Amino acid sequence: MKVGDCLYRSIWVDDNGWQVAIIDQRRLPFEFIVRRLTTVDAAAEAIREMAVRGAPLIGATAAYGMALAMRSDSSDAMLRQAYDLLLETRPTAVNLRWALQTMLLLLEPLKNSARVAAAYAKASEICEEDVEINRGIGRHGVALIEAVAKRKSKEPVNVLTHCNAGWLATVDWGTATSPIYMAHDRGIPVHVWVDETRPRNQGASLTAWELGHHGVPHTVIADNVGGHLMQKGKVDLCITGTDRTTAEGDVGNKIGTYLKALAAKDNGVPFYVALPSPTIDWTVGDGLSAIPIEERDGSEVSHITGRDSDGRITTVQVTPDGSAVANYAFDVTPARLVSGLITERGVTVASRVGLESLFGKRG
Amino acid sequence: MKVGDCLYRSIWVDDNGWQVAIIDQRRLPFEFIVRRLTTVDAAAEAIREMAVRGAPLIGATAAYGMALAMRSDSSDAMLRQAYDLLLETRPTAVNLRWALQTMLLLLEPLKNSARVAAAYAKASEICEEDVEINRGIGRHGVALIEAVAKRKSKEPVNVLTHCNAGWLATVDWGTATSPIYMAHDRGIPVHVWVDETRPRNQGASLTAWELGHHGVPHTVIADNVGGHLMQKGKVDLCITGTDRTTAEGDVGNKIGTYLKALAAKDNGVPFYVALPSPTIDWTVGDGLSAIPIEERDGSEVSHITGRDSDGRITTVQVTPDGSAVANYAFDVTPARLVSGLITERGVTVASRVGLESLFGKRG
Repeated sequence: MKVGDCLYRSIWVDDNGWQVAIIDQRRLPFEFIVRRLTTVDAAAEAIREMAVRGAPLIGATAAYGMALAMRSDSSDAMLRQAYDLLLETRPTAVNLRWALQTMLLLLEPLKNSARVAAAYAKASEICEEDVEINRGIGRHGVALIEAVAKRKSKEPVNVLTHCNAGWLATVDWGTATSPIYMAHDRGIPVHVWVDETRPRNQGASLTAWELGHHGVPHTVIADNVGGHLMQKGKVDLCITGTDRTTAEGDVGNKIGTYLKALAAKDNGVPFYVALPSPTIDWTVGDGLSAIPIEERDGSEVSHITGRDSDGRITTVQVTPDGSAVANYAFDVTPARLVSGLITERGVTVASRVGLESLFGKRG
Repeated sequence: MKVGDCLYRSIWVDDNGWQVAIIDQRRLPFEFIVRRLTTVDAAAEAIREMAVRGAPLIGATAAYGMALAMRSDSSDAMLRQAYDLLLETRPTAVNLRWALQTMLLLLEPLKNSARVAAAYAKASEICEEDVEINRGIGRHGVALIEAVAKRKSKEPVNVLTHCNAGWLATVDWGTATSPIYMAHDRGIPVHVWVDETRPRNQGASLTAWELGHHGVPHTVIADNVGGHLMQKGKVDLCITGTDRTTAEGDVGNKIGTYLKALAAKDNGVPFYVALPSPTIDWTVGDGLSAIPIEERDGSEVSHITGRDSDGRITTVQVTPDGSAVANYAFDVTPARLVSGLITERGVTVASRVGLESLFGKRG
């Protein structure tokens, strides 16, 4: 998508043919800094320190990390060492494990001399697959926006989104944002309500930044506001991403998604979840009992980072000394609150029948 | 309530018998600063600049502002001038207008020489009335907490609250917090989930500070978290305040209240609103269509104030340059989502019948 006047992806191989370029997302929305990764250690650090985040992008970065490792030393020992190093960076990330296992399975049987080229090719393939999935989500999801646009004639279609399920979390297009970008690119007037998404503020700092650079009209709101907007008819549809969706259509996503889904239901606003098929967890049915909810460090709640009046990136404490804080990172939105799942194969109902109609019978 | 080891109210007449002491709430939770108001201009500034906030406290401060005005000049001209000056500070505050009209009605017919003493006496009476109302809310509301405590034997009762409907917003006790303080003072184990309450963070900065100083166990959470906690059985009841409740029981309150009420309903968690009877608007039935929602300055969303690592109070920007922001301050929770209204006369259902059963027929 666009940054300034240029088209970017969130990860790419530099013109020199081997360095891996990423955008340091910790500096957004205030500074746009491209970093070149030249070693597997640098790739691991980029993941661990969250210069890159978002499941698909983490997987892609890890894949290129394996390629960088092979370039320095294509031995079996390094292959194992790189795998272990990268896997440890975000132990709970499902895409990370999947990408690393894909790389390991490919590279292990190969002669050392063939490993570098094969690793770069596979990492590139993993990226292209992600882009294709997201493009598919966009193609199917844009029809939903288009249908509202027809009803509203020239009025903008108001879409509410939560957190960042944007191109910065993937390789390109994003998941929840893909239908939005496609609508915008087709000239459909669209306006996005961007939930701030406390405590890490990925909505305000990443989604708003993305949309702004691509030229999509948007407004940042506090997480408390979506319900009021829906009561007042100011939201035409909601589209969020998901970290993990069960075989029965329960949606694990950034904390607060459930509250917006409740408000959507209460006000008859369609609530869609953009769902790349690799995030379907076919092993689990009931999300509420089965999806573990990560508790993250309380400092994300008690402290907020922004830019001070001197232009410095500064972190400030916002809770009293001595007050306890809790930081649940995700919640589960039951399938009954989800109007539909937008996948790369089409839009379907949030249920086992719906998912199996697109992806075939499982288990 | 307690600050350190001392009992405080949010406003009081100093030992010298005429200066009016307030707590500068803009400096909380980081600094506890008592300011002495010596002129009506200082009182007006304290209200305008939000050193004091919360409807009852604004009314009390305005009443004392009239007393300070009379002390400097008890003429009819000053009476009018002080009234106009104070009324302009927060034009939409209903309590402010009510307190000022009460003072004007009392003082206008009096001889100049009688006005100072009468003004101080009436301001004190307004404060005592507020304390009595809140004590009444506490007495009736504590029974709800006590009932849960009996079921849970020695487990703490988990109460979720939103924004600051605490003693800092009133003269003492607070509204939503009054049952909580009474429960705590009676030795009932109670733990409070404190919604941060973006964008102004009154939960994190004021409610958490209050509870901490009074010794009530509490945990600050992002506004996105309450739904998840209710799904997991970690909330026994919700208690919020209200800015304005209609004759049919629709509740206008801080933005985000509606979302928590939806989650409470969805999970069978009782949702109570603490309601001093002066905030009942008997002229209005349907809150959704009739309660106007204030839009405040977007800078409250785009910027956050806290304490930096050097101990300085610093404001940082958290949204991208160029992104629009919207700042709706309140929302309306329909009566159907409210389990009960806790008033100074008892707990009742959120309906015209319920309210009239306590306060008599109106209109």
